[in-house]
Amino acid sequence: MRLHGRRFQHVIAVHRATVGAELCVGLLNDRIGTGSITHVNESALEMDVRFDHTPPQKLALTLILALPRPKVLRRVLRAVSSMCVPRVIIVNSFRVEKSFWQSPILGEKNIQAQLVLGLEQAKDTALPEVLLRPLLKPFVEDELPSLANGALSLIAHPQASVPCPRHTQQATILAVGPEGGFLPYEIDKFTACGFTPVTIGSRILCVETVVPALIAQLC
Amino acid sequence: MRLHGRRFQHVIAVHRATVGAELCVGLLNDRIGTGSITHVNESALEMDVRFDHTPPQKLALTLILALPRPKVLRRVLRAVSSMCVPRVIIVNSFRVEKSFWQSPILGEKNIQAQLVLGLEQAKDTALPEVLLRPLLKPFVEDELPSLANGALSLIAHPQASVPCPRHTQQATILAVGPEGGFLPYEIDKFTACGFTPVTIGSRILCVETVVPALIAQLC
Repeated sequence: MRLHGRRFQHVIAVHRATVGAELCVGLLNDRIGTGSITHVNESALEMDVRFDHTPPQKLALTLILALPRPKVLRRVLRAVSSMCVPRVIIVNSFRVEKSFWQSPILGEKNIQAQLVLGLEQAKDTALPEVLLRPLLKPFVEDELPSLANGALSLIAHPQASVPCPRHTQQATILAVGPEGGFLPYEIDKFTACGFTPVTIGSRILCVETVVPALIAQLC
Repeated sequence: MRLHGRRFQHVIAVHRATVGAELCVGLLNDRIGTGSITHVNESALEMDVRFDHTPPQKLALTLILALPRPKVLRRVLRAVSSMCVPRVIIVNSFRVEKSFWQSPILGEKNIQAQLVLGLEQAKDTALPEVLLRPLLKPFVEDELPSLANGALSLIAHPQASVPCPRHTQQATILAVGPEGGFLPYEIDKFTACGFTPVTIGSRILCVETVVPALIAQLC
């Protein structure tokens, strides 16, 4: 296996690896193993690789996320990918700025690039599925009922009276609103699908803080 | 009370507030209340304010954090401040790049600016205490024993065999290492002070993801 570009630079600059060093390697959407460096030059390295184990198990969690600012989305995608979330559905909400939907970050390749960074961080190879749903109403009415069927269905809401469950160990679908929160009308659409509003405290946290916090508490 | 600059811009651009609107206001390290806008011009606004309640209760948590990259530190300071952590001690570790200690972000005013952003996000006013300890050994030997005395003392370590406790509801001191982790020698220094290595899974998470995750799981 030959490595160049960003990953080659990382191996040289961060791992400071030389010939003979062993690295953790993985094939996207495939197995994980070990690479033993056999040659290094100024722009690439070669490894003997063997792939002998499967990637870590994913969480039984679907995350529904109101589209955040592009810069924040990048970080959230890396975080959820590193935390082994298998599916993220990015939805619209009244408080999402319309211009966010035009961001190049939503291009398939750009989303995948962020997800891969998260996988690399966590030594995982199984790419999460990311779905874009720029229209909330048809998503909630037409798709959500079957997605939520049989799953613990939660919507994060700082003013909820029910605390977010801990360590549920069951299939869960979790909706997280935009900065400023879902509108009451939007929350009602989710509760009509069987979602329970839950809170991890009345403090308002930003999306990139609340998403790891909710996942850690739930899973 | 007169508001101008960044906070004025936020009220106008994000809250889209006009005369008569009520805003949540707070005095740094003091009480929280309501401001009613009486005048707005192009660069400032005036409010009638009343302060009638105390800020939210802090967590019973001290966070010891190996100094991350300056960009990451900024985000982590905002996150821990928004999550009501009362004390953060930033320490050195073998894997912390020496140049990070020269970063302007470590200036008192710059740290406070990030903490204030976190407080604003969470509607809190009580500034966390941030201590810098650029020498790990004297910190661990001279200060840590009394800091950890009587507290649940934990050091996050992906390879630990003990899972991180959930919802402890007791005074806790938690150490989080640098990207790449504390050295075995450093972990031994903590365990000699009564710290237990704990894990939230073998996945390696970046600092800005693992800190909110650990706090949410513990508290």
